[in-house]
Amino acid sequence: MKAAVLRDGHMVVDDVPEPVPGAGQVLVQTKACGICGSDLHAAQHADRMVELTREATQSSGIGVSPMVFDTGRDMVMGHEFAAEVLELGPGAAGVTVGQTIVSMPVVADQGGIHAVGYSNDYPGGYAERMVLSAGLLLEVPNGLDVRRAALTEPMAVGVHAVNRSSIAAGTAALVIGAGPVGLAVIAALALKGIEPIVAADFSARRRQLASTMGAHEVVDPREEPAIEAWRRVDGRHPLVIFEAVGVPGVIDQAMRAAPHQTEIVVVGVCMETDQVQPFMGITKELTVKFSMAYDPMEFASSLHSIAEGAIDVTPMVTGTVDIDGVPQAFTDLANPDAHAKIVVEP
Amino acid sequence: MKAAVLRDGHMVVDDVPEPVPGAGQVLVQTKACGICGSDLHAAQHADRMVELTREATQSSGIGVSPMVFDTGRDMVMGHEFAAEVLELGPGAAGVTVGQTIVSMPVVADQGGIHAVGYSNDYPGGYAERMVLSAGLLLEVPNGLDVRRAALTEPMAVGVHAVNRSSIAAGTAALVIGAGPVGLAVIAALALKGIEPIVAADFSARRRQLASTMGAHEVVDPREEPAIEAWRRVDGRHPLVIFEAVGVPGVIDQAMRAAPHQTEIVVVGVCMETDQVQPFMGITKELTVKFSMAYDPMEFASSLHSIAEGAIDVTPMVTGTVDIDGVPQAFTDLANPDAHAKIVVEP
Repeated sequence: MKAAVLRDGHMVVDDVPEPVPGAGQVLVQTKACGICGSDLHAAQHADRMVELTREATQSSGIGVSPMVFDTGRDMVMGHEFAAEVLELGPGAAGVTVGQTIVSMPVVADQGGIHAVGYSNDYPGGYAERMVLSAGLLLEVPNGLDVRRAALTEPMAVGVHAVNRSSIAAGTAALVIGAGPVGLAVIAALALKGIEPIVAADFSARRRQLASTMGAHEVVDPREEPAIEAWRRVDGRHPLVIFEAVGVPGVIDQAMRAAPHQTEIVVVGVCMETDQVQPFMGITKELTVKFSMAYDPMEFASSLHSIAEGAIDVTPMVTGTVDIDGVPQAFTDLANPDAHAKIVVEP
Repeated sequence: MKAAVLRDGHMVVDDVPEPVPGAGQVLVQTKACGICGSDLHAAQHADRMVELTREATQSSGIGVSPMVFDTGRDMVMGHEFAAEVLELGPGAAGVTVGQTIVSMPVVADQGGIHAVGYSNDYPGGYAERMVLSAGLLLEVPNGLDVRRAALTEPMAVGVHAVNRSSIAAGTAALVIGAGPVGLAVIAALALKGIEPIVAADFSARRRQLASTMGAHEVVDPREEPAIEAWRRVDGRHPLVIFEAVGVPGVIDQAMRAAPHQTEIVVVGVCMETDQVQPFMGITKELTVKFSMAYDPMEFASSLHSIAEGAIDVTPMVTGTVDIDGVPQAFTDLANPDAHAKIVVEP
């Protein structure tokens, strides 16, 4: 089948082996798959990503990571997908052929758990077809279109970051970065009724998207420091800062700007070594909480929030491509003013 | 009066002006005053400390810090003291001459709040006499001797760090560094009934003190990584790591070693720029909580824990000096195997 393949650090389109559903697994037709910033990271820094993941996993005490792949072998990425059930493997139950589904991007077999989209063995959504675990599939409700259903996964990242924070009614939010992760955080904050939500991004288009997704105030940090924008519109509530950029220096900036006893939730994935001033953290008694992924309940609630219209993800999709268009889309996504989320429709 | 003075980055003994109690203030005779690691920092890096404190305070939203002093002027440090009331200023009430007291090291006047021991105007406990606020004085109960009473302040730092953590019954603790701050954390953890408490320090003497203060296991990190010592004696409870070293690299080490979803409480004061791997934090969903000082309740409870014998601070005092001995004590404290806490007895 046709797929966009990460091969030796480059995205190429090629034929890859047809996946075959094993016990408890289901073959699905990929209908829509978002391109994630993590995939851009992986394409550029695969070795470092694997090395850090291996170290983190070994020290974590939770066993082998499904995300440790062999960078010398082909890998089909894509972990934000909606798909149609084509065929049930032996013993697969609970789904029927023709159903439109989403799934957390993990698949189980006798060898363990594999990360769909970060596995050499299980192709992700940049391929025509995938194999998934029947027990993890969620039917897409309310006739929700596949393009929006595919945004279940990135929205769940925002939902989880907000759940992981201590934010509550009477607390303000400052979201640094309005890329897909920041936009998902903004949507989750808005869903929770948080006010005000202040968002900062250098890109005018992303600031506009931030407003659309629920930010009450947006700011270009070149014109006004993000913290000053919050002080201008609020400045009196306890504040939670969401770091959704993921480049070196942003955590330090947030720590330097943060008011006393602020919580900083780091949800942007920075792969590089970063510098901080611990003295800032101590003097102001800051808390830095790192947030990763989501749990199955958050994934399901994200799907339902989208399907029920509580979160409108439509504005986030700024482009669509077929599989042939994936390599160019990886290039295009480097320009933040041009795109938020590009969805692949194989 | 005689005092050990920080002058142009050097500790010298000299005569300084006699303090005069103003409205609501009390003149006290310093009886005992611990030398704190922060004072060693201040002596070495006063400019940087003030610069960072100023930046932290301006951004904190809580007004002017009492700890921003003029490094070009004399300053008498010493903020871990017990003293005897000599004379009440106008309107001072609630204390009587001759009482032995401790106080949080802050003093109020019409100009605001000043940090006793980090102020050009209010000498700290390395002087024969101090001026304090009557309303902040706590009488030392149970005939507790002044040497142990003086350790109320550093013990409160440990009590606060433990209170700030989410540690509870069924959670293990790993304390990195068994200097005075780490020892205070260990004592506060033991008081809370936490088990096991694992402590790591390069110094044999400090490891011995850690055991005395309540650590169930001590380890020399050159012989066994601290995290492995915890795995060996426990390895199954949720873990809170207390970083009580305060030198660059220790937060990074803790983040790299920490199990999944571990909380790291940073209580060691690092004045330098530090490096971390945010990816470790994200992949393992770590929380880094910075802890500073204590509140009045924690200060009072620390005094009572010491006075009632719930915390025996006696082993922490490894030396005493008079005011003339302070400069040499600053030098001696650089050797961790020689000393934990030196108490000045003017």
